[in-house]
Amino acid sequence: MKQRLYLYDTTLRDGQQTQGVQFSTGEKRRIAEMLDRLGVDYIEGGWPGANPTDSEFFAEVPETRARVAAFGMTKRAGRSAENDDVLAAVLNAGTGSVCLVGKTHDFHVDTALGISLEENTENIRASVAHLKAQGREALFDAEHFFDGFKANRDYALEAVHAAYDAGADWVVLCDTNGGTLPGEIAEIVGEVIASGIPGEKLGIHCHNDTETAVAGSLAAVEAGARQIQGTLNGLGERCGNANLTTLIPTLLLKEPYASRYETGVSLEALSGLRRASRQLDDILNRVPMRQAPYVGASAFAHKAGLHASAILKDPTTYEHIDPAIVGNERIVPMSNQAGQSNLRRRLEDAGLEVEKGAPALGRLLEIIKERESQGYAYDGAQASFELLARSEIGLMPDFFEVERYRVISERRRNAKGELVIVSEAVVTVALSGGEQTTSFYQNQNPTEQQDAGPVNALAVALSMDLGPYQEMISDWRLVDFKVRITNGGTEAVTRVIIDSEDDKGRRWSTVGVSANIVDASFEAMLDAVRWKLVQEGARG
Amino acid sequence: MKQRLYLYDTTLRDGQQTQGVQFSTGEKRRIAEMLDRLGVDYIEGGWPGANPTDSEFFAEVPETRARVAAFGMTKRAGRSAENDDVLAAVLNAGTGSVCLVGKTHDFHVDTALGISLEENTENIRASVAHLKAQGREALFDAEHFFDGFKANRDYALEAVHAAYDAGADWVVLCDTNGGTLPGEIAEIVGEVIASGIPGEKLGIHCHNDTETAVAGSLAAVEAGARQIQGTLNGLGERCGNANLTTLIPTLLLKEPYASRYETGVSLEALSGLRRASRQLDDILNRVPMRQAPYVGASAFAHKAGLHASAILKDPTTYEHIDPAIVGNERIVPMSNQAGQSNLRRRLEDAGLEVEKGAPALGRLLEIIKERESQGYAYDGAQASFELLARSEIGLMPDFFEVERYRVISERRRNAKGELVIVSEAVVTVALSGGEQTTSFYQNQNPTEQQDAGPVNALAVALSMDLGPYQEMISDWRLVDFKVRITNGGTEAVTRVIIDSEDDKGRRWSTVGVSANIVDASFEAMLDAVRWKLVQEGARG
Repeated sequence: MKQRLYLYDTTLRDGQQTQGVQFSTGEKRRIAEMLDRLGVDYIEGGWPGANPTDSEFFAEVPETRARVAAFGMTKRAGRSAENDDVLAAVLNAGTGSVCLVGKTHDFHVDTALGISLEENTENIRASVAHLKAQGREALFDAEHFFDGFKANRDYALEAVHAAYDAGADWVVLCDTNGGTLPGEIAEIVGEVIASGIPGEKLGIHCHNDTETAVAGSLAAVEAGARQIQGTLNGLGERCGNANLTTLIPTLLLKEPYASRYETGVSLEALSGLRRASRQLDDILNRVPMRQAPYVGASAFAHKAGLHASAILKDPTTYEHIDPAIVGNERIVPMSNQAGQSNLRRRLEDAGLEVEKGAPALGRLLEIIKERESQGYAYDGAQASFELLARSEIGLMPDFFEVERYRVISERRRNAKGELVIVSEAVVTVALSGGEQTTSFYQNQNPTEQQDAGPVNALAVALSMDLGPYQEMISDWRLVDFKVRITNGGTEAVTRVIIDSEDDKGRRWSTVGVSANIVDASFEAMLDAVRWKLVQEGARG
Repeated sequence: MKQRLYLYDTTLRDGQQTQGVQFSTGEKRRIAEMLDRLGVDYIEGGWPGANPTDSEFFAEVPETRARVAAFGMTKRAGRSAENDDVLAAVLNAGTGSVCLVGKTHDFHVDTALGISLEENTENIRASVAHLKAQGREALFDAEHFFDGFKANRDYALEAVHAAYDAGADWVVLCDTNGGTLPGEIAEIVGEVIASGIPGEKLGIHCHNDTETAVAGSLAAVEAGARQIQGTLNGLGERCGNANLTTLIPTLLLKEPYASRYETGVSLEALSGLRRASRQLDDILNRVPMRQAPYVGASAFAHKAGLHASAILKDPTTYEHIDPAIVGNERIVPMSNQAGQSNLRRRLEDAGLEVEKGAPALGRLLEIIKERESQGYAYDGAQASFELLARSEIGLMPDFFEVERYRVISERRRNAKGELVIVSEAVVTVALSGGEQTTSFYQNQNPTEQQDAGPVNALAVALSMDLGPYQEMISDWRLVDFKVRITNGGTEAVTRVIIDSEDDKGRRWSTVGVSANIVDASFEAMLDAVRWKLVQEGARG
């Protein structure tokens, strides 16, 4: 009989403390959906009332299988739980689960709060009791618990027992400063259980300041804790939180965990792990960490010659798990054998059947390799990959050629002396029928500073008059574009990925690379239009 | 009486297996010097004979306090140790210490080598005996030891005892595939010691495939091992090796290690840890990992408002060590979760003293909040934050105003009919003295398609003639720019963050926001120039 472990994700709350990370409400919703698909048990959405984004998220909580938890802090001294407006804002979010952080380290009660230990204990007790009186699931985040336990064991235990006795459903032991090593965590969790709080009520919340947050979480589980708090991709304050992207596959695949425990994550969901990790990076416009365990692009890359040749005999020689289990892929630089079968699978996904061993496969692999060394990335630009493949296997019509384009952005003073910004673009296109069209676009609202820039101006001009194809692209919309500086050979180049949409609900991504950001954007844009024309069945 | 732990660095050998890493001989020498300054005991320089770079490195071994070790593999079956040319090349490097890797997992002996277990044992014995006969310090890397022990305990022990009995100075237990968790490592190291190889002769070599390489190394030390193998910044095959950049401060600063063990790293050398980590990234042209434990730019960054205010009262409230010990710095970045205390701290760091409760603080917080809702982000753009603050407290000179600018990017056919891309920019600036300058820039190489785009063209034009300020910005360089689409109120806007550098070693980041990417870039660029002028002491 396996025991249940509960996964509590705090990407949307503690993960937001990552330097440079600032989620919008829409991004929070997308991430919540992603987490729910993965199968975590709890999604901590943020702190209602602390900032407009978090409040907006809770104003319309997404419908998920996972429980969405609101985060806040225990009531302040000198007022009742009922009359604390900060606590009230958290409860007013109306979530079934509420997690409140409170002090358990005597030093912090004194230094940060400036109240007595008794007052602090009472704040914890009254806050948890208030949650329970309101019929909520109550989680208590015991801040600085491990440091507190080492400094004043009796008080740290008194504080967590106050929460437990008041009816807390979970007491979460937090290593807030991230300095506690796994051995100590195991020992102290054991002592908390010995003091009378059962492991079924204990959670663990680790930070990665000593690069042991994953190991610390596992140590706590082995000592008896049953809830793990962490974040996707290890986002979080300072060095980040315990990385659920690593913990999830370890708990599902590795002993002694796999046979002792179960989680809400299925093996099917696990095969989407790499994708979830990449989607989060995409949302944050972060470069994915190649060396990330399980999901990184290098996690199953075998560079050493001895390793690579053994891998060809039997992949288990140098792999601790089958990469497919987490949706990842093996990379063996020495052989393009694996490459060709991967490629055929991808082409099939695009509806292009190519025979095993066809010469086009080898050529296409070479082209992709060459282009990737120039800075292209086809992982996130499936539509451009399809166009490249079509072109190589002779299935790409010549719809049109761009003869020239010119785009201007100008900031100047208008008649009223205000600084305004204006963009205009001219695009000349030679159609496959021999005809030529020239379109000019200038933004219409120069005084209101609504100019959407050179890329938008080019997109409008390009889609103004495409002759026989015009009707087919009338519902094409440019919805997002991502820019990254990368290395193309020896020079820095700009890679632009453009996301497009149409009224039929299609969404597709294309890539362009150039030292000139406008030119890279234009290339991605041309691919977007061409892919759309292929879908519409246009003929060259 | 403390026991001695030995640090064995393999950055130059296993670290070279990192995807995308390829050291030159000169780089290897620089890294070896760096490692020696840090105080590691061993520097594994590579595999003499395996490739030209490694052979060249050993042809002239740098003079270091640390022992430089040559790496190789045990002799092959069917020939004597004396007659194995691969082994001979390793010995011919002439190093006092030699580390040979050999199989200890029965499956690998069979699958990868295709020889009998007895032959493999004899290869290990004879190779180690040969090293000792030549008067070398002999290290044996027991490949796949933990997987081997779990699959065939008796054979794994037989293999390492063959090395030990033949006189190996160190038997290094390797978790080659990185799948073994710390608990298992502790247990198995304990069993090896119980089998008769003393801990003083045992080393540990972990990989990070489950994100527990640091914890696994610590677990081995607690179980009795006395040598740790790892790499700087956790470089290495797949997910990397155990990260010495993390292990070193943990061993020196954290219990139970600090009082039980000593290493060759002094506290003085430890204060150069962050610098060493950055130098390695510089050599590899890698972006330093912000979240890296101890040495990352975010490792002591306090974003949460509650944390930031407590840090001002006492830094130990949210820091597990004093950042200065490892040469790092505290950062209290701006974000919409920051309070006034956070703000004051940040201003102090910029040399701006503002009294507690000063009205400017409240105004500045409001402005930042308002700007963040428009899409600005100040925690990744501290220079822009400083300018904003200076302006609000009346310490920002009016250096110049941009009267207008215009930038064109054009793709057209040149005289030879090739498609080329050209950018040009005009910038008109009104200087504070009343003078006005106009600069024009066009890329010089239209036929070679070397155009670096509109942002670069504007940067060149802007920095062509800034009158009295021209000299001060002559060493300003735009080194990186990051773009993302974000929500500014109801409209999508573009946020550009520009990183700049100068010859004095300054590096600073500025932000611009606009629906027009060129305009956003220009705004960030203006901030970059203005910040530089403030540093140079320019007057308005």
